[in-house]
Amino acid sequence: MRVGLLTGGGDVPGLNAAIRAVVKRGEGEHGHSMVGFRNGWRGLADGDVMPLTRSHIRNVLPTGGTLLGTARYHPHAEDGGMDAVLATLEAERIEALICIGGDGTLHAASKVAEAGVRIVAIPKTIDNDVWGTDRSIGFDTAVTIATEAVDRIHTTAESHNRVMIVEVMGRHAGWIAATSGIAGGAELVLAPEEPFDIDRVVKFLRHRHRAHASFSIIVVAEGAVPAEGTSMDYETRLGPFGEIVAGAIGERLGAELSERTGFDTRVTVLGHVQRGGTPTPSDRILGSRFGVAAVDAVTAGSSAVMTALHGDDVVLVDLAEVAGKIKQVPADLLGVAAALA
Amino acid sequence: MRVGLLTGGGDVPGLNAAIRAVVKRGEGEHGHSMVGFRNGWRGLADGDVMPLTRSHIRNVLPTGGTLLGTARYHPHAEDGGMDAVLATLEAERIEALICIGGDGTLHAASKVAEAGVRIVAIPKTIDNDVWGTDRSIGFDTAVTIATEAVDRIHTTAESHNRVMIVEVMGRHAGWIAATSGIAGGAELVLAPEEPFDIDRVVKFLRHRHRAHASFSIIVVAEGAVPAEGTSMDYETRLGPFGEIVAGAIGERLGAELSERTGFDTRVTVLGHVQRGGTPTPSDRILGSRFGVAAVDAVTAGSSAVMTALHGDDVVLVDLAEVAGKIKQVPADLLGVAAALA
Amino acid sequence: MRVGLLTGGGDVPGLNAAIRAVVKRGEGEHGHSMVGFRNGWRGLADGDVMPLTRSHIRNVLPTGGTLLGTARYHPHAEDGGMDAVLATLEAERIEALICIGGDGTLHAASKVAEAGVRIVAIPKTIDNDVWGTDRSIGFDTAVTIATEAVDRIHTTAESHNRVMIVEVMGRHAGWIAATSGIAGGAELVLAPEEPFDIDRVVKFLRHRHRAHASFSIIVVAEGAVPAEGTSMDYETRLGPFGEIVAGAIGERLGAELSERTGFDTRVTVLGHVQRGGTPTPSDRILGSRFGVAAVDAVTAGSSAVMTALHGDDVVLVDLAEVAGKIKQVPADLLGVAAALA
Amino acid sequence: MRVGLLTGGGDVPGLNAAIRAVVKRGEGEHGHSMVGFRNGWRGLADGDVMPLTRSHIRNVLPTGGTLLGTARYHPHAEDGGMDAVLATLEAERIEALICIGGDGTLHAASKVAEAGVRIVAIPKTIDNDVWGTDRSIGFDTAVTIATEAVDRIHTTAESHNRVMIVEVMGRHAGWIAATSGIAGGAELVLAPEEPFDIDRVVKFLRHRHRAHASFSIIVVAEGAVPAEGTSMDYETRLGPFGEIVAGAIGERLGAELSERTGFDTRVTVLGHVQRGGTPTPSDRILGSRFGVAAVDAVTAGSSAVMTALHGDDVVLVDLAEVAGKIKQVPADLLGVAAALA
Repeated sequence: MRVGLLTGGGDVPGLNAAIRAVVKRGEGEHGHSMVGFRNGWRGLADGDVMPLTRSHIRNVLPTGGTLLGTARYHPHAEDGGMDAVLATLEAERIEALICIGGDGTLHAASKVAEAGVRIVAIPKTIDNDVWGTDRSIGFDTAVTIATEAVDRIHTTAESHNRVMIVEVMGRHAGWIAATSGIAGGAELVLAPEEPFDIDRVVKFLRHRHRAHASFSIIVVAEGAVPAEGTSMDYETRLGPFGEIVAGAIGERLGAELSERTGFDTRVTVLGHVQRGGTPTPSDRILGSRFGVAAVDAVTAGSSAVMTALHGDDVVLVDLAEVAGKIKQVPADLLGVAAALA
Repeated sequence: MRVGLLTGGGDVPGLNAAIRAVVKRGEGEHGHSMVGFRNGWRGLADGDVMPLTRSHIRNVLPTGGTLLGTARYHPHAEDGGMDAVLATLEAERIEALICIGGDGTLHAASKVAEAGVRIVAIPKTIDNDVWGTDRSIGFDTAVTIATEAVDRIHTTAESHNRVMIVEVMGRHAGWIAATSGIAGGAELVLAPEEPFDIDRVVKFLRHRHRAHASFSIIVVAEGAVPAEGTSMDYETRLGPFGEIVAGAIGERLGAELSERTGFDTRVTVLGHVQRGGTPTPSDRILGSRFGVAAVDAVTAGSSAVMTALHGDDVVLVDLAEVAGKIKQVPADLLGVAAALA
Repeated sequence: MRVGLLTGGGDVPGLNAAIRAVVKRGEGEHGHSMVGFRNGWRGLADGDVMPLTRSHIRNVLPTGGTLLGTARYHPHAEDGGMDAVLATLEAERIEALICIGGDGTLHAASKVAEAGVRIVAIPKTIDNDVWGTDRSIGFDTAVTIATEAVDRIHTTAESHNRVMIVEVMGRHAGWIAATSGIAGGAELVLAPEEPFDIDRVVKFLRHRHRAHASFSIIVVAEGAVPAEGTSMDYETRLGPFGEIVAGAIGERLGAELSERTGFDTRVTVLGHVQRGGTPTPSDRILGSRFGVAAVDAVTAGSSAVMTALHGDDVVLVDLAEVAGKIKQVPADLLGVAAALA
Repeated sequence: MRVGLLTGGGDVPGLNAAIRAVVKRGEGEHGHSMVGFRNGWRGLADGDVMPLTRSHIRNVLPTGGTLLGTARYHPHAEDGGMDAVLATLEAERIEALICIGGDGTLHAASKVAEAGVRIVAIPKTIDNDVWGTDRSIGFDTAVTIATEAVDRIHTTAESHNRVMIVEVMGRHAGWIAATSGIAGGAELVLAPEEPFDIDRVVKFLRHRHRAHASFSIIVVAEGAVPAEGTSMDYETRLGPFGEIVAGAIGERLGAELSERTGFDTRVTVLGHVQRGGTPTPSDRILGSRFGVAAVDAVTAGSSAVMTALHGDDVVLVDLAEVAGKIKQVPADLLGVAAALA
């Protein structure tokens, strides 16, 4: 059986662990012939293929990024994109496709599945907002990096009596903000799930600094916004792919707080470091388990499903139930962040 | 309300996050008066108390160990132990007790609950073998440390063409071995769940070294044993607390493999470093969530329950269902380790 | 003997190691009475004192920041500043002063020494540009953090075929840029020591991307500037303390390269994370050695000197020879960065 | 010009950075043809060659180990070893040889130089005991790993009121012990430079535990020994290569202290993890600088020299002055360790 593999969307740590697992298991246990497509869906549309054998996956387990390359390209959104994808699959005699990606890739996968292709998806996103799975590949590493940053910012905040704002990723969900905020002991977490009131933030800081402390750390997700009708103007700025522009809310919030409170306020925008480097053990294990499960699933004839983590178990869920939904941070987790401020 | 708190058994990273959460939430939200007992159940029996206020938990979130101290002492196993515990609780007018520990502490907690004390337990163990919860505090950090060690051993193994054995913790369950083995890309994982056949290990190594590789890494849990009737003599050696003696199986296995295969074989016993140092974000978050849930539970009148992680949710489970059981590694996870060798 | 201690300027990892060493050695070996001034020279001017005993330095060795607090305040530059400093020293009967800081603090120290105060300085700056010493406290940790960031950026650059710009600290000297550039394998290092020609940067990138690679990493110090007469406009932007504004050159360079080359270009400004968190062993050791040497020096009657690292030895150098000079990166080290691009 | 390259002795982190620098600089700047010998001097004797081009060194900068492999084999100590080495050099038309190694390799290099071969050596050893250079490749990473271990052990020691012994590498010199002891805040450092008196150790522990503390950490180098005439029997145990057997002194010391003091005492032997994994920035930079300097030196016609770090400068020193000498820890650095206990 010839099985194709691609990684789409932004790169995250743990992709190579998944690729390695797919290849080792596919070739070793099932005897499949594995084929990789370079640079995501674009490579599939363009017929940019590479063989994937054991020699390609040597020593990649602890590495970040994706050895296949990736791109932000969605075939169903491009003129002739779907036809090109189907043509490549036929030309390369691919009997099943495994695609690793976030919401864009899952959406593309469900479209390709509708066209009759046997396809299994593996969820990855540092935002952790894929519906239907407890965790997506890359999230644990991102949280680890963000927490490290909050730890580091902490000592500067304390030494200089400052309000330090750390902007982390999270366009539609505040998973990184909530978890790194709890883990790093931030005083305040601002997430897309709960639009904030700048007046209450100001009041909180004033009260805290008057009462007992001389510094504060605020972790803000890039997708956080002021609540409607509150006294701060801000509109989410969008980039070429409809993504939220990094830094905008952090800088805006910093300027506002500095002016309103008079406290020495600094902003750090973590940016791309959150998605790079050596994956944590947790992301390597998740990638490995998802990779094994995905290739087992296509071999068994499954299609239009996604591997998912439910508790300690890896299961398959229907793509149709997942695509287009956003998994936000539940109120009780945001509550823990607030309770421990 | 006066609420007591203790940590029992071996120390693990993340205990201070849990203590901090109990105190912040108990004092801040519920207005409780918090009291700590030093050095676990022994301190409770001896009346060794300390106040626990916000000033005691400053800056402890990223630290390992337990600010309360701990000891291996179980009141129900000591003459007069239970009476001493009850006497202290009365003398200190403690209305509810929160205890953080592993199987020994959970057992003690269920005994103390039977004596009429309101008690909520929080599970911690780097072995991750507490029944009824997906994760216990300390496990994620231990896996991270063990994986780092396997990564480091990897480069030496490869550079010198050696068989490297890494012995990790895990008396009755091979969670650390299986997960650090998968994350570190070990060739073989030996766990208590599946007694091993040394002849098959030898055959596997010979085949691998003949076929394509010049080195191998074996991760072995301290509680791993040869299968009955197989050709290697070894009996688990026990220490003063009935614990398995670290290093025994690693050294034994190393000697056996060196002799039988002639390969240059080295053994590393990770030991105490696995349970120390800065907790990972995951352990800080788990400790924080369990701490909040435990103090909310005693406040609401719950007793004889344990906080537990089920998927993304923190829930309460009955101590009676948990105590005395061991959660072992499921076959499918051991299967992933084997599949990716 | 009563010995005063303060930390001035920006906080860096390793300050607490130095404070600990001064106190342990001063109290333990010499029997001094140690007094701390809060928030740097401002605290000395304001008489903001705290006792410094062994209990204050417990567990601070692995922590970042400074337990004394710090501020950007220079007595010789403030009206009445010097008088206030001398008045506090007399009121507190301080016989010798140890001050830990960068160029501003060293300058202040030499002024205070001229006024007859026995004073020994310890150099700290993540920029590593203090004259007269191979290393200053904080530099090694900053390089480690910056290299980690470059490592992480690397995987994203490669996966997405991007030009990634990482802006690191270094106002007047490019030590962090050169060393993290070498350690992280950057393609280009831009430092204040060698003003750059944007046309050559563009040519280099085009050549590299045409020839063999699809991505590039540029590490740029915040104080880097285009050479006079070259085709890019940019003037260093200065903040309230005359410091270079973080992010300005990174953003400017990114916009320019994106426009001129058409390559997908992203900018990461590391900012405050570079100066926080757990100090590396190297910074803890340097802080410890400098602390011991400084308190030994004041005890022996030395004044107007600075502790310095020369090779493997800690020595004393005259403040007069040091203050006001900038130690820049030697051409041969910048040459190594260029040679390995 | 054809230039040969080998790595000898135990592997250390930073070797690949040096190999990369030699190849990049040799091929890129000088236009040399680079040839690698596998598994150290044995590969040179056996004619086990591999080409070394830019494609071989891709992505190796942050990796541990040596891509050339290594072995403990010294041509001058083997029958016919020198002849075999010279024969390979002639057969492969090697005009100059760069060898990276510790004392054994430096000794071999000086012998090969005497036979008329142009040769430049690069010092590596985690023990840091090569004469004539401030630092050798691998030391900084080893200290970082050992300090991490001491940090982790610290929290367990404190939580359980234990005496924890950490055995680190250092056969003839206690560099890792002294530096990780200072950086980790150990109470006692035992190094080969100063044979210890067990009675004084016992007295120190008793006094400390009686006075104010309930735990202690002792860092002991594997080559530490009791002073002659003192009351503890111990003779260094040697392995097949004359190396000191890891764990022997740690275990012996632990047993002795446990018996004499009655304190709960545990031993951790770090072993091979000290020499593996990602090199620190400092080791990557040192390897890179040494690599560039070595290939520049052979190109310029130098021979029988070693690259060395003197302060901030990389220089060349005569092999004849270096080989056979051990650089031990100076008394003042051991004094800092003692002063801060």
